[in-house]
Amino acid sequence: MRLVEFADRRFRLAGREVLGRVRHFMGSFDALSDGADGRLVSFGAYDYLGLSADERVRQASADAALHVGVGVSASRMIGGERNFHADLEANLAAFVGTEASLCLVSGYLTNLSLVQHLLGSRDLLVIDELSHNSIVSGASASRARTITFRHNDLDHLEEILATQRSAHARCLIVVEGLYSMDGDIPDLPRLIAMKHAHDCWLMVDEAHSIGVLGETGRGISEHWGTDPREIDLIVGTLSKAFVSCGGFVAGEARVLEWLHFTLPGFVFSVGMAPPIAAAADTALRILREEPWRIARLRSLSAHFVAEAERLGLDCGPSRGHGVVPLFFRDNEETVICAEALLSQGFYCPPIVQVGVPRDQPRLRFFLSASHTEANVSAALEVVAAACNSERNLDRLAS
Amino acid sequence: MRLVEFADRRFRLAGREVLGRVRHFMGSFDALSDGADGRLVSFGAYDYLGLSADERVRQASADAALHVGVGVSASRMIGGERNFHADLEANLAAFVGTEASLCLVSGYLTNLSLVQHLLGSRDLLVIDELSHNSIVSGASASRARTITFRHNDLDHLEEILATQRSAHARCLIVVEGLYSMDGDIPDLPRLIAMKHAHDCWLMVDEAHSIGVLGETGRGISEHWGTDPREIDLIVGTLSKAFVSCGGFVAGEARVLEWLHFTLPGFVFSVGMAPPIAAAADTALRILREEPWRIARLRSLSAHFVAEAERLGLDCGPSRGHGVVPLFFRDNEETVICAEALLSQGFYCPPIVQVGVPRDQPRLRFFLSASHTEANVSAALEVVAAACNSERNLDRLAS
Repeated sequence: MRLVEFADRRFRLAGREVLGRVRHFMGSFDALSDGADGRLVSFGAYDYLGLSADERVRQASADAALHVGVGVSASRMIGGERNFHADLEANLAAFVGTEASLCLVSGYLTNLSLVQHLLGSRDLLVIDELSHNSIVSGASASRARTITFRHNDLDHLEEILATQRSAHARCLIVVEGLYSMDGDIPDLPRLIAMKHAHDCWLMVDEAHSIGVLGETGRGISEHWGTDPREIDLIVGTLSKAFVSCGGFVAGEARVLEWLHFTLPGFVFSVGMAPPIAAAADTALRILREEPWRIARLRSLSAHFVAEAERLGLDCGPSRGHGVVPLFFRDNEETVICAEALLSQGFYCPPIVQVGVPRDQPRLRFFLSASHTEANVSAALEVVAAACNSERNLDRLAS
Repeated sequence: MRLVEFADRRFRLAGREVLGRVRHFMGSFDALSDGADGRLVSFGAYDYLGLSADERVRQASADAALHVGVGVSASRMIGGERNFHADLEANLAAFVGTEASLCLVSGYLTNLSLVQHLLGSRDLLVIDELSHNSIVSGASASRARTITFRHNDLDHLEEILATQRSAHARCLIVVEGLYSMDGDIPDLPRLIAMKHAHDCWLMVDEAHSIGVLGETGRGISEHWGTDPREIDLIVGTLSKAFVSCGGFVAGEARVLEWLHFTLPGFVFSVGMAPPIAAAADTALRILREEPWRIARLRSLSAHFVAEAERLGLDCGPSRGHGVVPLFFRDNEETVICAEALLSQGFYCPPIVQVGVPRDQPRLRFFLSASHTEANVSAALEVVAAACNSERNLDRLAS
């Protein structure tokens, strides 16, 4: 079979019709912004701290491109290492509260390569059923046995460890600091106790929790008041709160030293580009200097949940930590609500078919320190009105 | 076992002693440059066309950072798409001679995710034994059966296909356009014939061949005079000839359309950053406008091989296409030669333990349009002298 025929067939199975329906949401944001007579208010950007348009971030990136260059033209193992890499990694480690960190050019790759690298065929990997695709891909790639536990259900995790742990050499538990499609967070103190009780390693993907959770944005450990060194591997990203691109892993210096020389996704990739690193480093500095951004994100998130509940909308398990989903009955209702938002100048792409269970389509709202309470209230009113109107039509039709 | 103890143990197995010996080659290039009283001439950078210091590339990147921003703060599927993405992808596709292309934030991830995504458990994946780690990781991650053939030995590949192909549903052959550790290239016309004869798909990783092979740098198809559309999936990188960061896959429009909506490493990653895309797009434009760079790289490469052979150095299978290895007897000799080069102002990090077979340590020279013939001759003289002196010492000692 020709590849193009195979691709056509697979695309049909993946839901081409539905995906085609939401195509204009994926299409150029530039065009959408122009078309709506001025800039849209976007709830589709994980720009939690409102730094993506910050002049200081952009200027630092531009300066790095001009004075240091763009690509470093080598793996950091063999010629691509620059002083700014170590500076950024030291700053990230100090911020999250670990001894060391290591940056990769992609956050997705950081998770995938770590999970693939850490375990062998005698080991056990236990992951949340709603883990990000980068973790799931790492699990498929790993030779370890993988078991998934019900989303955020630590009783289920406990049961798995109690019955399965002893049959394996090493065991890695992977959770996320803040689940990006549902907006909920795991019980970290209990996870730490379980990891000790069952002699496991704990890896936490803090892609969406760093810069968001905790009084000063240090993530899930600060949120729960636990020592970040209790987490064996903290994974973070530079593309969310730090408005750049790339990933990092943080932990003990000797662990990071080993990863520096052996983690395949690091060793066999080009070193991080100067304009990317400079932007992230600058965003990190601003985050430390302007804690009001975190407080503002928190109050906006609380406002969102309170307003949504008042309007009878379904936020699922989210309690309002920067990202809040709204669940709808089906794909059609989800797309109708997204279109209603767009017509009123709000951008929130429907999430259907890909990345979430097919029977749980949603609008996923990323909140940002750059939003206002008025933005949030107005957008939710639009959704509630569209939803009610659609349900009334349904009732009339039936 | 604590993770740090496991890491220590693994690091010993990975050859910590040897890796420690080459540590200062990995350490900051900035520091090395400063220490050597002015800039080093680097043979460790895959800056084939001499564009990494080009002001036009740097300025384009800086302008993009200032005027478009750094991170796009979303997957391109759901809000991260910008006009410049489509522009860059159209330009890349036009350059390599395919209908369409798709950019990912990492070249490593592009290979890994594609190989993992394309095949299922009934399928066969056949790869070269010296494939880049990104392909090997993709093979481990894939559910398909994987068979490796001896490096660049198409008789062996033919034998595998003749005996194994029919037992599988689909079959993907993966090769590289230019093997980056050995500098050799595969017989593409024969691969195309084999792919048709055995109903396989052919994927070629052109990370090191685009910008290098062919009269106008269009890669391995131009080198052999074949139609690039005979390759089902051409993978390229933005970090080599295009002096930026990231990867791309090129092929038929309908195949790329499917990948756009389903390739995990694309769908679940942030969209490519403006300063990264702008640098690559500018480098691509310069490459088209200044073909002398490719001609210059070709003549320097030929000069390298001729000089190395005159001096009795071992270039292995390389015939001089931008990257040429020099093989040594052992790690010690390799490191001594690299140190001799460094002391004379030439940077070429030793490649030992990681990325190559352990019994085949080497210095891998990346040539660049920014080098001179005098640079090449002088560096080779240093290596030959260091090598001879070391071998004489050995003879005296024995």
